[in-house]
Amino acid sequence: MADHLKPAGQAKFKDQHVTKFDELLIEADGQHRRYGLVGAPLSKPSISHSGAAFAPGAIRQAMSSYSTYSNGLGIDFNHEQVTDFGDINMHPTDIPGSQDRITESIKTILNRQEVDELFLLGGDHSVTYPSLKAYQQQVGTIGVIQFDAHHDLRNLQDGGPTNGTPFRRAIEDQVLRGDHLVQIGIHDFTNAAAYDQFAKDHGVTVFTMDDVKDQGVEALVDQAIQHLIDQVNLIYLSVDMDVLDQAYAPGCPAIGPGGMTSHDLLTGVERASAFEAVKAVDIVEIDPTIDFRNMTSRVAAHVIFSYWKGKIKP
Amino acid sequence: MADHLKPAGQAKFKDQHVTKFDELLIEADGQHRRYGLVGAPLSKPSISHSGAAFAPGAIRQAMSSYSTYSNGLGIDFNHEQVTDFGDINMHPTDIPGSQDRITESIKTILNRQEVDELFLLGGDHSVTYPSLKAYQQQVGTIGVIQFDAHHDLRNLQDGGPTNGTPFRRAIEDQVLRGDHLVQIGIHDFTNAAAYDQFAKDHGVTVFTMDDVKDQGVEALVDQAIQHLIDQVNLIYLSVDMDVLDQAYAPGCPAIGPGGMTSHDLLTGVERASAFEAVKAVDIVEIDPTIDFRNMTSRVAAHVIFSYWKGKIKP
Amino acid sequence: MADHLKPAGQAKFKDQHVTKFDELLIEADGQHRRYGLVGAPLSKPSISHSGAAFAPGAIRQAMSSYSTYSNGLGIDFNHEQVTDFGDINMHPTDIPGSQDRITESIKTILNRQEVDELFLLGGDHSVTYPSLKAYQQQVGTIGVIQFDAHHDLRNLQDGGPTNGTPFRRAIEDQVLRGDHLVQIGIHDFTNAAAYDQFAKDHGVTVFTMDDVKDQGVEALVDQAIQHLIDQVNLIYLSVDMDVLDQAYAPGCPAIGPGGMTSHDLLTGVERASAFEAVKAVDIVEIDPTIDFRNMTSRVAAHVIFSYWKGKIKP
Amino acid sequence: MADHLKPAGQAKFKDQHVTKFDELLIEADGQHRRYGLVGAPLSKPSISHSGAAFAPGAIRQAMSSYSTYSNGLGIDFNHEQVTDFGDINMHPTDIPGSQDRITESIKTILNRQEVDELFLLGGDHSVTYPSLKAYQQQVGTIGVIQFDAHHDLRNLQDGGPTNGTPFRRAIEDQVLRGDHLVQIGIHDFTNAAAYDQFAKDHGVTVFTMDDVKDQGVEALVDQAIQHLIDQVNLIYLSVDMDVLDQAYAPGCPAIGPGGMTSHDLLTGVERASAFEAVKAVDIVEIDPTIDFRNMTSRVAAHVIFSYWKGKIKP
Amino acid sequence: MADHLKPAGQAKFKDQHVTKFDELLIEADGQHRRYGLVGAPLSKPSISHSGAAFAPGAIRQAMSSYSTYSNGLGIDFNHEQVTDFGDINMHPTDIPGSQDRITESIKTILNRQEVDELFLLGGDHSVTYPSLKAYQQQVGTIGVIQFDAHHDLRNLQDGGPTNGTPFRRAIEDQVLRGDHLVQIGIHDFTNAAAYDQFAKDHGVTVFTMDDVKDQGVEALVDQAIQHLIDQVNLIYLSVDMDVLDQAYAPGCPAIGPGGMTSHDLLTGVERASAFEAVKAVDIVEIDPTIDFRNMTSRVAAHVIFSYWKGKIKP
Amino acid sequence: MADHLKPAGQAKFKDQHVTKFDELLIEADGQHRRYGLVGAPLSKPSISHSGAAFAPGAIRQAMSSYSTYSNGLGIDFNHEQVTDFGDINMHPTDIPGSQDRITESIKTILNRQEVDELFLLGGDHSVTYPSLKAYQQQVGTIGVIQFDAHHDLRNLQDGGPTNGTPFRRAIEDQVLRGDHLVQIGIHDFTNAAAYDQFAKDHGVTVFTMDDVKDQGVEALVDQAIQHLIDQVNLIYLSVDMDVLDQAYAPGCPAIGPGGMTSHDLLTGVERASAFEAVKAVDIVEIDPTIDFRNMTSRVAAHVIFSYWKGKIKP
Ligand SMILES: [Ca+2]
Ligand SMILES: [Ca+2]
Ligand SMILES: [Ca+2]
Ligand SMILES: [Ca+2]
Ligand SMILES: [Ca+2]
Ligand SMILES: [Ca+2]
Ligand SMILES: [Ca+2]
Ligand SMILES: [Ca+2]
Ligand SMILES: [Ca+2]
Ligand SMILES: [Ca+2]
Ligand SMILES: [Ca+2]
Ligand SMILES: [Ca+2]
Repeated sequence: MADHLKPAGQAKFKDQHVTKFDELLIEADGQHRRYGLVGAPLSKPSISHSGAAFAPGAIRQAMSSYSTYSNGLGIDFNHEQVTDFGDINMHPTDIPGSQDRITESIKTILNRQEVDELFLLGGDHSVTYPSLKAYQQQVGTIGVIQFDAHHDLRNLQDGGPTNGTPFRRAIEDQVLRGDHLVQIGIHDFTNAAAYDQFAKDHGVTVFTMDDVKDQGVEALVDQAIQHLIDQVNLIYLSVDMDVLDQAYAPGCPAIGPGGMTSHDLLTGVERASAFEAVKAVDIVEIDPTIDFRNMTSRVAAHVIFSYWKGKIKP
Repeated sequence: MADHLKPAGQAKFKDQHVTKFDELLIEADGQHRRYGLVGAPLSKPSISHSGAAFAPGAIRQAMSSYSTYSNGLGIDFNHEQVTDFGDINMHPTDIPGSQDRITESIKTILNRQEVDELFLLGGDHSVTYPSLKAYQQQVGTIGVIQFDAHHDLRNLQDGGPTNGTPFRRAIEDQVLRGDHLVQIGIHDFTNAAAYDQFAKDHGVTVFTMDDVKDQGVEALVDQAIQHLIDQVNLIYLSVDMDVLDQAYAPGCPAIGPGGMTSHDLLTGVERASAFEAVKAVDIVEIDPTIDFRNMTSRVAAHVIFSYWKGKIKP
Repeated sequence: MADHLKPAGQAKFKDQHVTKFDELLIEADGQHRRYGLVGAPLSKPSISHSGAAFAPGAIRQAMSSYSTYSNGLGIDFNHEQVTDFGDINMHPTDIPGSQDRITESIKTILNRQEVDELFLLGGDHSVTYPSLKAYQQQVGTIGVIQFDAHHDLRNLQDGGPTNGTPFRRAIEDQVLRGDHLVQIGIHDFTNAAAYDQFAKDHGVTVFTMDDVKDQGVEALVDQAIQHLIDQVNLIYLSVDMDVLDQAYAPGCPAIGPGGMTSHDLLTGVERASAFEAVKAVDIVEIDPTIDFRNMTSRVAAHVIFSYWKGKIKP
Repeated sequence: MADHLKPAGQAKFKDQHVTKFDELLIEADGQHRRYGLVGAPLSKPSISHSGAAFAPGAIRQAMSSYSTYSNGLGIDFNHEQVTDFGDINMHPTDIPGSQDRITESIKTILNRQEVDELFLLGGDHSVTYPSLKAYQQQVGTIGVIQFDAHHDLRNLQDGGPTNGTPFRRAIEDQVLRGDHLVQIGIHDFTNAAAYDQFAKDHGVTVFTMDDVKDQGVEALVDQAIQHLIDQVNLIYLSVDMDVLDQAYAPGCPAIGPGGMTSHDLLTGVERASAFEAVKAVDIVEIDPTIDFRNMTSRVAAHVIFSYWKGKIKP
Repeated sequence: MADHLKPAGQAKFKDQHVTKFDELLIEADGQHRRYGLVGAPLSKPSISHSGAAFAPGAIRQAMSSYSTYSNGLGIDFNHEQVTDFGDINMHPTDIPGSQDRITESIKTILNRQEVDELFLLGGDHSVTYPSLKAYQQQVGTIGVIQFDAHHDLRNLQDGGPTNGTPFRRAIEDQVLRGDHLVQIGIHDFTNAAAYDQFAKDHGVTVFTMDDVKDQGVEALVDQAIQHLIDQVNLIYLSVDMDVLDQAYAPGCPAIGPGGMTSHDLLTGVERASAFEAVKAVDIVEIDPTIDFRNMTSRVAAHVIFSYWKGKIKP
Repeated sequence: MADHLKPAGQAKFKDQHVTKFDELLIEADGQHRRYGLVGAPLSKPSISHSGAAFAPGAIRQAMSSYSTYSNGLGIDFNHEQVTDFGDINMHPTDIPGSQDRITESIKTILNRQEVDELFLLGGDHSVTYPSLKAYQQQVGTIGVIQFDAHHDLRNLQDGGPTNGTPFRRAIEDQVLRGDHLVQIGIHDFTNAAAYDQFAKDHGVTVFTMDDVKDQGVEALVDQAIQHLIDQVNLIYLSVDMDVLDQAYAPGCPAIGPGGMTSHDLLTGVERASAFEAVKAVDIVEIDPTIDFRNMTSRVAAHVIFSYWKGKIKP
């Protein structure tokens, strides 16, 4: 066909020297690669109206805006390939069934051992429980470092398995021990006393935004790792983007002032991923339909990049 | 791979009985099909700032919202396949070069004779001149029915080959004879007297919106066809969406009151395509970045559907 | 308290001679009134992302923009009172349970016989099945006139009780006989052949947009009423706002060109409500989060007003 | 200075054959011209929040998008010049004072007799009373044809001289006799019975939207003119853009379905202006801050163009 | 009535353990409570177009998004109740009259001594003068700490009692002594030299953003309190949200770079409220119609929360 | 003419004591002034769709929002006058020709020596090459301090003279020596390794965002100046606004997290301009069509103000 005809949507400028991050994503093909990525476009469980189901697409699109070279490190990630397992197909009206599909799909992925480390793109935070369940079944005892404005320890009676409950379910169903959970960045005025108490009662380590401002996120991550590292087989990072200040993440359903800067979060992720035990990440609670210019998905793309920086940094 | 994992972006609800129009699009593979489609994502030649380069994508996306069954006709178009030749890759800074790429690409397509009828998705109206040039070189004498608020007969001296000039260039370069051009829907207060005069001087048939309101679009199309049918080898429809009233096409750069309803336009296209000599269509001047919910691209999708209805109607 | 202090949100200009429609709404208090109104803020069953759960609030707000006097009729509706039964509380994660709550709540309302005629404000179109079920259980055989671009006769296997299925469920569960359903305004390219066939197979009367343009909506309504009036105990109007052209209803999830004008729809509703057997209305598929200035909710408010006009017209 | 340097904001493409309407506007210079134009950027008197003060700028900008040639008539208006008297400077906190400034400024303009016919660009509808007062003082008995969804006959007690009161004030202050006022296009559910009664009691001629649909706007305009022509020295058109359906005028504070198309309004204005007694126009109630792409201001520009068409038509 | 029927607008998810801040607001009922809240929805005095009249509603809505528990302090505010005195009804066309209504209403509230401390939600900054006047008449000598980008010491001649004048009026009318006013956060390039001079001439203490960056907001607040505490009976905080950088408060009419972070402002308020003499707060200059996702109103809600934190902190 | 009539668009509130920055701009008149300003509304060369051509207008409008008095310095800039050379008229379809017009226009300006220091308002970054060329031809050896997320050292083969190439062209065409270029604020993941290498190979000094965070922008500026000051005749600041974090500059085409705060950038510019050799500034890559409330243009206005502060500071 004529030289200038490109498949639909792909007729765009290409600089011969630039690799964009989306070029690293290879549709699953049975080859082993270090990193994998999968989307869970599920937001119907959210308590408030959420379009977080569109986030896997928005984050992949954001990745395509950035090139693979870190000027700061002088390292090009263009040699990496990432298996893109695609998105998990959700059921329109069966919410628990959709959550089960997440567990099944992640178990399938882990089972095949085609990747060593996996990124899960939510969706709302309800995707984390079925994800953790798959991990616990595949790798045994796990620990979690959760970046979040909220505890997500709500009772299940009032609304079932919403985006406010993943860690409550995980603890109650013995998927995760309370003392294997570290929460960083909990905001003021976004939680109930009862759930802070639940955290304390179950040995959850809670660092508030006051702690972040006092000690810095890197010190808190170090404490989290030290606390978990000898107790668990794998450390899982659960990144709820609403841990950020609204100026930095305008596209989360629950936004407010007084949160982290994106620099805080990215530094925290980079610090954590430097530890070998950290092998899984989910990124949740971005609603692209209410974001401004995909800003929040752009930060999410950088969460992945920072994870890679932590892993590769000499 | 697990049952519920779908390639990125494709994990969506599928009703077993529904075919969407985008499912008819098959990437060019050398097979012969009646219809072909190609995008020309070019809007840098526009006099005013335009994102019409995004329209091929937006129109394809709009097509994916509609199913292939016409209740009115009781006909399902799901048996059709359409060769999607993709998009023509444009040069970032060489505007004349980009226009040449359109001519070359369309000549290549026509040359291979893999399709009998072709849809060209602009882009701004400047894409029509290079397209017509390709047709004239391949099929000889052509006639054009242009739905437009504007004559597009501007002089070339003032700004070069902008979106205001395609038919002037075509006439001056003997790609199209003036008396082989019929303009339907010309708006008041969107043209200069000098260009109306140019039209008259070159035998262009001009039907204004007053004519549309007085006689109806179908009668005008019939006159256009009668005028052209014995003179030309092929009749080309050039559909500038700004022929519509702003209430119906909020996403064109040049909008205003007093234009056609979408029903007028769709009826006109359906009427025209019923004639065998009509074999080519371009759809131009949609800027998705300023549209409301892709309304204008949705009408564009229906321009294609109406074309098919005209062709298939018993 | 000081003269100028008003309860929060109520400090606004009041013209002593003007009654707004929201002033007619009286919270349920056990008194009998002719009309009642209830909201079903449910849109999680929707196939595509929908904020139709916000429509009951948006429609009530739109009602508050209009005064109760019809200049055309010379009649003031300010003597009417309407029992506002409020909104049905939905479950965050149990979609079938939410639909059951609709059936229960409407049965309760009908049972108490405090109102003779009821408006149900959706929500997406999935709310109609549970509503019809309540009616059928309370009043026996019912007929439905459905204004819609779509048949809503999708199979249940593929996605469960979505907004594409209410009339399929109703027919299959013998809540509604196929020949007691009349569909007006079905658009081209929004349905599958299989569902048109299902309609035919079950005796559903289908009027397409071509029929609307050819015969006018009033003639179709008259035919619908004549068809139903001796067969059923009550005629229910189900008004899916996407029957309108996108220029008139920019706030429906599924929009497109070629639909009714708002004048068509309002005329149709007014014509239908003039018949005594017509006693129930639902209004569905408005997503205020994607609308422009609540235009579509404003039309919805006028659907209610037109219903009243039909009832009261001498 | 260098050839390509233009004063700030004026470096734009110029086609040598095209005249835009803004080029006809000449800052007041003492020369006599047939037409004048003046802006009254006042919207603080509005009952609901309004940015109509931005409309004079938005309408002038809209004028600059259109060229001076009417294809329909074959007439170029490029020989006209229009004295632009600029905008009347409003006081930030003295609303009655601002209204007085309108009376004074218009009296000054009329007094100087530099123009024969004047366009007043509001602003909200409250600008009409001070304008009419100036006319009555300068030319004596006047008649008004008001295109409006609303009577604008509210009592003054409740809120002072708001945008709901101009014609009440005019009648009560004997600036305008009730039987010299003709209202065309009054919508349903936008007025109180008491004000319809006031209209009747004072001899106001009221044509509702039902009348527009039944008889057509041209017939109503003819009746209005016949009614007024022998009674008054000058006929003033007061064009409240909310007489239009919301699909055609999305940028008025009070929008709704069931109004005129822009074609209706433009036809009505053109019909009216054909009568020599018609010599003044105001255009009000456009709030550019809530409009979509200045659509409503674009219609306003065409109101002026249609007025000119009526005047010039052979 | 049926279990799931809730009054209109109240059918939403309720977690049994969570109290939201709006639940603390109790409509005025004659009971004594520590805190009161009242809205002054007035923005017509603003020099530039402003929808700040919508802010009382937007701030109350923002409060309803946050729960009453401070994780940082480990304190739940759910035991507090706040008397909501509602909103002061404004006159549509009498701006000075509206300002008088504020004085009267606040005097009434203070007079009844039902609350000890009061939040006033503007509105634009013009509401502060009538508010201070009420305080001065009820409690005698008052001091003010003003967080603001601007001096608000404009002359009254040019535009009357606009939002640029409250402190000028207060000083000139001897409602407030210049040396009892401390301004914190004055931005560069937002004031005239003449008004800085006026401040100096009248003993106003002015801290610019340079001072905030050099010394920190807490040190400035401490100096302010020390300066005022022995001189006045009550210290009033006047919080103009445009003291914030535009990244943190995108919804103020006058935005710009180089202002406070929301953390700065909240820290400053918390520091100030810890002093017993601080008993009144107003929050002004938020225009929800131009904000992004009510971000600025969310910060305003946190201003109230931070005030409470300061009061309750051990 | 009447007292209150002002030329169109100029009827606005004027405080007798306030001078706004736009009042300093005087259309070019042959008088000598220290500062000049010229716009280059060119963005068609951009790789991605850009409306940066609207930035000169948006920045001038932003300037008109700010007053000329710096509270921090206690200095009023109202004594300055700035020659506004207007905007360079661009060709609609000849991109290289448009770039040549920039060179010609700036040479003309420099040649006439009417101003000592010049601000160039882009436009995309492609305007810098033709600007530098003019400077080099007029003043000889120049040095550049570039604030940017990107190197802008792309090869010319792939896309011609796009906004990604200005410094590559300048170096290759010997308009600028590589070692006379200092880049500050280069972001991670926005460049290719090959271009970092090109920078190194040509002696370009590169400071990344990591350097900015480690050393502070003022220290880097000092190093840049020391490096250049003895080597060049003039130091030119090229300010690409995408050096800022997306929270501070939402209106650049290429946004992302991890950039400078606006305080960083303004401090850097102020520091640089304090050196006498710094005499030229361009400000590029603002696309007002995608910005939020002209925030990014507001920062651009402050870049100019900070430059003046640096020049005037004692
Ligand atoms: Ca969470
Ligand atoms: Ca969260
Ligand atoms: Ca055209
Ligand atoms: Ca056109
Ligand atoms: Ca439906
Ligand atoms: Ca439908
Ligand atoms: Ca009116
Ligand atoms: Ca009106
Ligand atoms: Ca202030
Ligand atoms: Ca302020
Ligand atoms: Ca750059
Ligand atoms: Ca850049």
